[in-house]
Amino acid sequence: MPTEIPATGLALRTEITGSGELRLSLVDQPTRAPGPDDVLVRIEAAPINPSDLFLLFGPADLATAVVGGVPERPTLTAKVPERLLASVRGRLDQSLGAGNEGAGVVIAAGENAAHLLGRTVAVLGGAMYAQYVTAPAREVLVLPEGATSAEGASCFVNPLTALSMVECMRLEGHTALVHTAAASNLGQMLNRICLKDGVELVNIVRKPEQVALLRGQGARHVVDSSADTFLADLTAALEETGATIAFDAIGGGKQAGQILACMETAAARKMTTYNRYGSDTFKQVYIYGGLDLGKTEFTRTFGFAWSISGFLLTPFLKRIGPDRGGQLRERVAAELTTTFASHYTADLTLAEALQPANIANYNARRTGEKYLITPHRG
Amino acid sequence: MPTEIPATGLALRTEITGSGELRLSLVDQPTRAPGPDDVLVRIEAAPINPSDLFLLFGPADLATAVVGGVPERPTLTAKVPERLLASVRGRLDQSLGAGNEGAGVVIAAGENAAHLLGRTVAVLGGAMYAQYVTAPAREVLVLPEGATSAEGASCFVNPLTALSMVECMRLEGHTALVHTAAASNLGQMLNRICLKDGVELVNIVRKPEQVALLRGQGARHVVDSSADTFLADLTAALEETGATIAFDAIGGGKQAGQILACMETAAARKMTTYNRYGSDTFKQVYIYGGLDLGKTEFTRTFGFAWSISGFLLTPFLKRIGPDRGGQLRERVAAELTTTFASHYTADLTLAEALQPANIANYNARRTGEKYLITPHRG
Repeated sequence: MPTEIPATGLALRTEITGSGELRLSLVDQPTRAPGPDDVLVRIEAAPINPSDLFLLFGPADLATAVVGGVPERPTLTAKVPERLLASVRGRLDQSLGAGNEGAGVVIAAGENAAHLLGRTVAVLGGAMYAQYVTAPAREVLVLPEGATSAEGASCFVNPLTALSMVECMRLEGHTALVHTAAASNLGQMLNRICLKDGVELVNIVRKPEQVALLRGQGARHVVDSSADTFLADLTAALEETGATIAFDAIGGGKQAGQILACMETAAARKMTTYNRYGSDTFKQVYIYGGLDLGKTEFTRTFGFAWSISGFLLTPFLKRIGPDRGGQLRERVAAELTTTFASHYTADLTLAEALQPANIANYNARRTGEKYLITPHRG
Repeated sequence: MPTEIPATGLALRTEITGSGELRLSLVDQPTRAPGPDDVLVRIEAAPINPSDLFLLFGPADLATAVVGGVPERPTLTAKVPERLLASVRGRLDQSLGAGNEGAGVVIAAGENAAHLLGRTVAVLGGAMYAQYVTAPAREVLVLPEGATSAEGASCFVNPLTALSMVECMRLEGHTALVHTAAASNLGQMLNRICLKDGVELVNIVRKPEQVALLRGQGARHVVDSSADTFLADLTAALEETGATIAFDAIGGGKQAGQILACMETAAARKMTTYNRYGSDTFKQVYIYGGLDLGKTEFTRTFGFAWSISGFLLTPFLKRIGPDRGGQLRERVAAELTTTFASHYTADLTLAEALQPANIANYNARRTGEKYLITPHRG
């Protein structure tokens, strides 16, 4: 049983008021003593994933951000345009924790979790931007001996999402896949998985230097959406790989529809007779991110055998069930510093995470950049 | 065995040349004698469905149409804009039959189909705009005694599509459905099916008089997309019915996305805690038509549990298998003049179908209007 439980710990909170103000703050949060099946984790590292940004800032206009408080307890307020308030109706006037995942050391454990005491673990939950977190022992992932919290901080979101893409591809009867914004941390990870598993992957990137980056990491098919030859290049890669499922991090714009159109062109090249309804090759695009929050638009030039859908990790893990989900988690732990290694652009304390200059960096969603919050540093 | 098989019969052909010309014509087509398992049908009525129009005219600019030939053997030619030729690459320089379905009398039959001689049957196939069609006996639907060819002409496309919508709703775990362009022949049919089967249906129409039409036919939920209160009306109907699947005949524009957004709003009203990823209520829009061939656009304000997909009858029938498909066909025959009755605006001979004034009418895709080709009249 624990010997020394801190009474409180610093935690980041985000709130949007009904009057249209975003308020970020740091609070001294009472530590919850672990129940018999729980562990208390001293969080040492928590990444800022794209999926965290929307909860942190909602639809606030950060150009209106104002800093307040004192250096160790800063606050940040910003205006939320009134027309966008309805989109976050469900969270108004609630102070919410943030941070989907993190890692740290178990400093206290309930009687059924005593074997975890002192171990470094990764935790999935909604409020990891905090110094201490209490979680059910069955929901933490024990890192291999010697792994650091920084190495384990991004154990869940990116690794399980990347593994789920390949899993979903197989489950739905496809044999190769497409990924957009493929030079991202997640994209590089997916590339490593596919190389290791012998799965053909078409990487779509947005800049020539990202082509070089992925090729340098062994990627066979990389197409650059900024090139004049993009659609022809993509079609050729789709024809060569037979990829009929895509995972799209961008969401807005025309690319989801372009992928379907190129898949249809690739399929049509193999057709021997005309079918006014298009090919019978089923083509799927899953939108799993929102790098472009603008509207999605497409012209339906790809027959009727197609689907554009949302994709979210948690429901997918429910779909494959806890046994298979457990296998994926074990693979992440086993390949933590190889296949699933994440790289960080910079570390930030909780207070630093509220500074506008830092926000401008980590909220820019630049491909390949990733930031880590270290709640106990400094 | 047949006593008298006509050597030839008139048939409508459509061709798009590689040089960008659409050519419609009537040809004297040799009649194919039925094999042992076939029937030869004297086609008396064949509807012009929206799904036939694209094969007939492709992407031709009908403002450039020129009539030629003689009154009994007219031709019609029109230009296809060069930039659109690629979209019909697969059919260039091929003379194609047209007409997805039709009905008529069996005037000759192979030895294994002799029991069908003299019966009025409906036929599904790709070339029903013709005086005579030879088809496998197992693919025709025998109409009830006394039913006319006009009554049976639209036996397949609309009835099976409408039945498939309800079938698909159940198969995918939904309990109520939405239909757009709901005042169409198909929409009125779907309304009768839903009333009969006790399924809640939200009808979306585009004009106030269509609200009155459907209400007059017993529809409980009819919302008018031209009304200022459309989104609120739709959301209220979705909340009341719990409909989470929609079948959209329009395709282009914003309506598919609006339906998902209203479904999400209806689902969110039942949520007790905020979820940044939206509700976990899965929302599906199937696009089965293209009344608006323009681009589809949507803003993703409906979480991640959603899908927009193409829907086509033939693959869906494959999915449910021949036994269930057979049951649906039997139901169509049994309720031919009630649930599945079609109404026609006008009859056209094959020659009349090539006259620009008639084309302007039947190609206008006006809700509720439907035309019938009668290859033996006059």
